[in-house]
Amino acid sequence: MTTMVRKLVLLGTGLIGGSFALALKRMRQVEHVVGVGRNMANLERALDLGVIDSASHDAASAVQDADLVLIATPVGQMGPLMQAIAPRLAPDCLVTDAGSTKGDVVALFRQYLNDHLAQCVPGHPIAGSDLSGAAAARYGLYEGRRVVLTPLPETAPEAVARLEALWRLCGAEVYRMAPAQHDSIFAAVSHVPHLLAFSYMNALLERQNVANCLDFAATGFRDFTRIAGSHPDMWRDIALANNRPILDDLRANVAQLQALIAMIEQGDADALTGFIERASRARTAWEARDKEKQ
Amino acid sequence: MTTMVRKLVLLGTGLIGGSFALALKRMRQVEHVVGVGRNMANLERALDLGVIDSASHDAASAVQDADLVLIATPVGQMGPLMQAIAPRLAPDCLVTDAGSTKGDVVALFRQYLNDHLAQCVPGHPIAGSDLSGAAAARYGLYEGRRVVLTPLPETAPEAVARLEALWRLCGAEVYRMAPAQHDSIFAAVSHVPHLLAFSYMNALLERQNVANCLDFAATGFRDFTRIAGSHPDMWRDIALANNRPILDDLRANVAQLQALIAMIEQGDADALTGFIERASRARTAWEARDKEKQ
Repeated sequence: MTTMVRKLVLLGTGLIGGSFALALKRMRQVEHVVGVGRNMANLERALDLGVIDSASHDAASAVQDADLVLIATPVGQMGPLMQAIAPRLAPDCLVTDAGSTKGDVVALFRQYLNDHLAQCVPGHPIAGSDLSGAAAARYGLYEGRRVVLTPLPETAPEAVARLEALWRLCGAEVYRMAPAQHDSIFAAVSHVPHLLAFSYMNALLERQNVANCLDFAATGFRDFTRIAGSHPDMWRDIALANNRPILDDLRANVAQLQALIAMIEQGDADALTGFIERASRARTAWEARDKEKQ
Repeated sequence: MTTMVRKLVLLGTGLIGGSFALALKRMRQVEHVVGVGRNMANLERALDLGVIDSASHDAASAVQDADLVLIATPVGQMGPLMQAIAPRLAPDCLVTDAGSTKGDVVALFRQYLNDHLAQCVPGHPIAGSDLSGAAAARYGLYEGRRVVLTPLPETAPEAVARLEALWRLCGAEVYRMAPAQHDSIFAAVSHVPHLLAFSYMNALLERQNVANCLDFAATGFRDFTRIAGSHPDMWRDIALANNRPILDDLRANVAQLQALIAMIEQGDADALTGFIERASRARTAWEARDKEKQ
């Protein structure tokens, strides 16, 4: 029996890449997994846990003979990695990534892998977690999760179909869209909520009685601010990479807040009821649909 | 053996009042509980579940001979209820409430129960839930939760001590503070997060591709917006009742967002890192302390 993947190389051996490798291993669809990373302790843990079969510090030599490369590092590290692997890629080696923004990653593919675009399929598995590192990798992470692929006009349809089949084997639902559409959607439902949560925490920290306030913060606060604990470097990169849709949405949020401030200043009960009802109804409807899906 | 409460009257027989009654019943510290409300089906369910021992539509007659009255309705209904019960209260009957704002409720106590202030102890049990109604009432709701009491200068120390003892029997930690301090703290950690979540939902609803966006909303969105599904009337009342601290905090949030917008516009990576790190560090530290407490 032949497997769908002979040699998978993970550039970045953490939760996202590691869980992809584990899912393919369980389905017996990969012969050999190489983990590449800078943190030796993390790579050793990945070896111990059977997430990878061998480890390397050198992306360029690791990708030799590979038929699938998954770049699962922060977006800021992707350019140099693409540049390093470009001369060593076999012509049929599919290259994909797991970045949370796609417009900027597509630009990197064009800049560094311009001769290889037929085999390049930018992607974004929607499986965020507070956890990171190879130790967090697990079977089943992608079960029922969504993966968005944003193929280039140059990408060979067979390459997209092959990657789609692999993500389906991991249990994911696969969607295709243009990079700009992806970035607009995720600015709205992921990037901006994170930035609002950071802003809220910083406003709170400006209060003189902040310690007292935090003492009485309860479950509403906990859920609302959970994403404010996210990784600073990753979110700085996202804010800069996806700046245009994010700026539009942040400005729209400021406008809504200014309208709300005016309603409260004027004591306009009807306007306030309408404002809150609109939001509450939409959130409740979303939750009902979301539960149906599960 | 005598119980601490002979006759408890719940003005509003829902999650908050019902769970208080259940906790005192389990501790055998209440002889008789009367539930008052406008919704007959809800009162019947409360009787069936043993949350209350008798039901009434008439607050004034219900409070006769009572030694404890808990007003656990939306704040907007409290004034008329206080006015109705004022002539019928026994001199030693303790009156408390469960409103989420305290400055406005204190003003209602002064307006309607001015001759009874020695036995009035405004309070706020911090035990919000998406659930409501008598059917949601449960033993143990207040186990490990916080209750803030904001006694008046006129309140008899014995009345405060008695109510404090009752809440402790329910498993709650009891704090005392001035109404303005309470309202400032809860504007910061509860009211403003709700209003930010409503605003965010409304900004999202203005997008042309809102349906598409909501299709890809995942766990970060779910947690961040959970409180946006809250009850419109209750939150309109809170926004109006606690307008001053809320307006200060909303303006502080707008200022933070404007600073963030400028950092992204200027592509200022260092400023962005600092902004996100400050928020992330504070949120992570809060979570660590919060887990220790549990």
